[in-house]
Amino acid sequence: MSNPFSFHLIASDGTARAGEIETAHGRIATPAFMPVGTQATVKAMMPDDVARTGADILLGNTYHLMLRPGPERIAALGGLHQFMNWHKPILTDSGGFQVMSLSQLRKIDEKAVTFRSHLDGAMYELSPERAVEIQRLLGADISMQLDECIRLPAKRDEIDRAMQLSLRWAERCKRAFEGAKPGHALFGIVQGGDDPALRIASAKALVDMDFQGYAIGGLAVGEPQAVMLSMIDIVAPVLPADRPRYLMGVGTPDDLIEAIWRGIDMFDCVMPTRNGRHGVAFTRYGQINLKNARHADDPRPLDERSPYAPTRTYSRAYLHHLVKANETLGAMLLSQVNLAYYQALMLGAREAIAAGTFNDYRVSVKAGWEEGDIPPR
Amino acid sequence: MSNPFSFHLIASDGTARAGEIETAHGRIATPAFMPVGTQATVKAMMPDDVARTGADILLGNTYHLMLRPGPERIAALGGLHQFMNWHKPILTDSGGFQVMSLSQLRKIDEKAVTFRSHLDGAMYELSPERAVEIQRLLGADISMQLDECIRLPAKRDEIDRAMQLSLRWAERCKRAFEGAKPGHALFGIVQGGDDPALRIASAKALVDMDFQGYAIGGLAVGEPQAVMLSMIDIVAPVLPADRPRYLMGVGTPDDLIEAIWRGIDMFDCVMPTRNGRHGVAFTRYGQINLKNARHADDPRPLDERSPYAPTRTYSRAYLHHLVKANETLGAMLLSQVNLAYYQALMLGAREAIAAGTFNDYRVSVKAGWEEGDIPPR
Ligand SMILES: [Zn+2]
Ligand SMILES: [Zn+2]
Repeated sequence: MSNPFSFHLIASDGTARAGEIETAHGRIATPAFMPVGTQATVKAMMPDDVARTGADILLGNTYHLMLRPGPERIAALGGLHQFMNWHKPILTDSGGFQVMSLSQLRKIDEKAVTFRSHLDGAMYELSPERAVEIQRLLGADISMQLDECIRLPAKRDEIDRAMQLSLRWAERCKRAFEGAKPGHALFGIVQGGDDPALRIASAKALVDMDFQGYAIGGLAVGEPQAVMLSMIDIVAPVLPADRPRYLMGVGTPDDLIEAIWRGIDMFDCVMPTRNGRHGVAFTRYGQINLKNARHADDPRPLDERSPYAPTRTYSRAYLHHLVKANETLGAMLLSQVNLAYYQALMLGAREAIAAGTFNDYRVSVKAGWEEGDIPPR
Repeated sequence: MSNPFSFHLIASDGTARAGEIETAHGRIATPAFMPVGTQATVKAMMPDDVARTGADILLGNTYHLMLRPGPERIAALGGLHQFMNWHKPILTDSGGFQVMSLSQLRKIDEKAVTFRSHLDGAMYELSPERAVEIQRLLGADISMQLDECIRLPAKRDEIDRAMQLSLRWAERCKRAFEGAKPGHALFGIVQGGDDPALRIASAKALVDMDFQGYAIGGLAVGEPQAVMLSMIDIVAPVLPADRPRYLMGVGTPDDLIEAIWRGIDMFDCVMPTRNGRHGVAFTRYGQINLKNARHADDPRPLDERSPYAPTRTYSRAYLHHLVKANETLGAMLLSQVNLAYYQALMLGAREAIAAGTFNDYRVSVKAGWEEGDIPPR
């Protein structure tokens, strides 16, 4: 538990990178996809099964955990790793994004964001210092600065104001993080909406502060994929090559491949587990809706060539039945299937980058999705 | 897959018995508890985890499976074992009990029960012959005769009529079952409500028909435990010692211990999984309600001496959090914990019977439940 935090590049292929992050709870191979464990559980999955899909790290949500069961309680119980029986690395967000999207009556000023809990109506204050303290109480290997994330489209003035506030909060988070235990890191978050100049200004200011990693926030909030990708194209060259780069809250398999292509190392998204709970599988054939009656009599698995046993084992007919009958096992299996697909996609990316063939890989996975599912029978 | 069906006693202790059933899909150690897999899944559990709790056999529900996805479909997909990825023995009920409790507009006559599906309102007919055919299509290792199960209290005339009809249906099921594949068995079901003379008459008539096993049905339908146990006391001596005895739909851990004490070999019940989904754990301390705030800060596991790893691993505080947050993992873990407790109870019973110490075992597990949970801290 005392490795220093570090990142090193293993290979690059154009702007795509493969590397390794060392943390207090072990190593993360990048590009990495982090399953989301909002309430101290990746929904409908045993922690061992999360690891079995190939995940090196998962994400916990400060907003949810501060409201229930509370960070002081989790700390007294030995920290989030111990609490949820996950002994690999954990990244926690700062809570800012979810305060904006889930809480009522929020008020942002220079000092902090004040909000009412969506659970019981109690008032909370989340300052940059408190956000760092909560993440320390949780025992996060990677903590995120508190930032203000605004919805797009927005006026330039408004984007600028939120970005500048986020920079001042970044400074305060950095000071609050001083003296953290070895193996733990704090990442800054580049803001600036869809404005190239503001994005560059934000990234440069954060790089001057010297964070151990950099996230790109405030994307995947409703803008077209092209806007998101152009922001990565603009920001990535400003970021130092020797620090990990994390694109927050993204995305579809295609988003991930395109972002890796542009130099991103880390991702998190609820999509694989959420879509799994709604009966949709991610596969090398693209997305497959198991509710569709075409699967009702199909003895074939989702993908007989998948490296993940449940994806090869259970028939489409059985998955269709579970989804139609609203059985929990359907959500459990499809969450696993989807996370395993995301992890296999990351493994494939790492191997292709190491082999210098990432563009071939990119073209071939996209061709698979576009060809679509195997014909019914 | 070609073992002949057989049962042999390994030991007895008073009227309590330990034995082994051989089936087409392997061996069942008795006394045995069968988890219920209503819709081709033990709710919120992976089949491997069901096996890991110690279950040798599970129960499937003919009523649910005939309505969705349909027995012909399951047969075309390779049978229920293949469909749900469970390769140990399966017992299926005949559908009769659930037609009575779940369907609308049911009509019973000599020929069959006719009913409307609770899913889509379609009309179905379930005759003794169709009940056997459905169970053959599912590939059940142990099939049950179709019977009429009535609610207690009921008039003696009504109990008698239903019991006599069930005997005529037993005959028809037996004829329909002729030519079944090796390793597969059909059990008769003793009816007769809470009337000793009718129970004895039913048991004797079934024994004359020579079934491979005998169930006691129509109990655990609202009568006091003492009535249920006295019916077992009356029926068990009439049943041949060399055939397994199955008490249907029972029950609490105490019901199981008392029924084993009276010579019962097999049980099924939704209680461990249903209570688990509602936040209640079965343990050697009795039932524990994880919703209770006393667990919120308790780092201790439910039972540090449990042979089942998840019961020892997860803290009461974490289980409390999952239950309060309505997280699926809470239902998943408590279903496992409860089935593992039931299976451990059966293993303890088998060992105690073999050692000739079943009464000590009975007294000691009851003392544990009565002492109750460990003190809060
Ligand atoms: Zn740890
Ligand atoms: Zn099999």
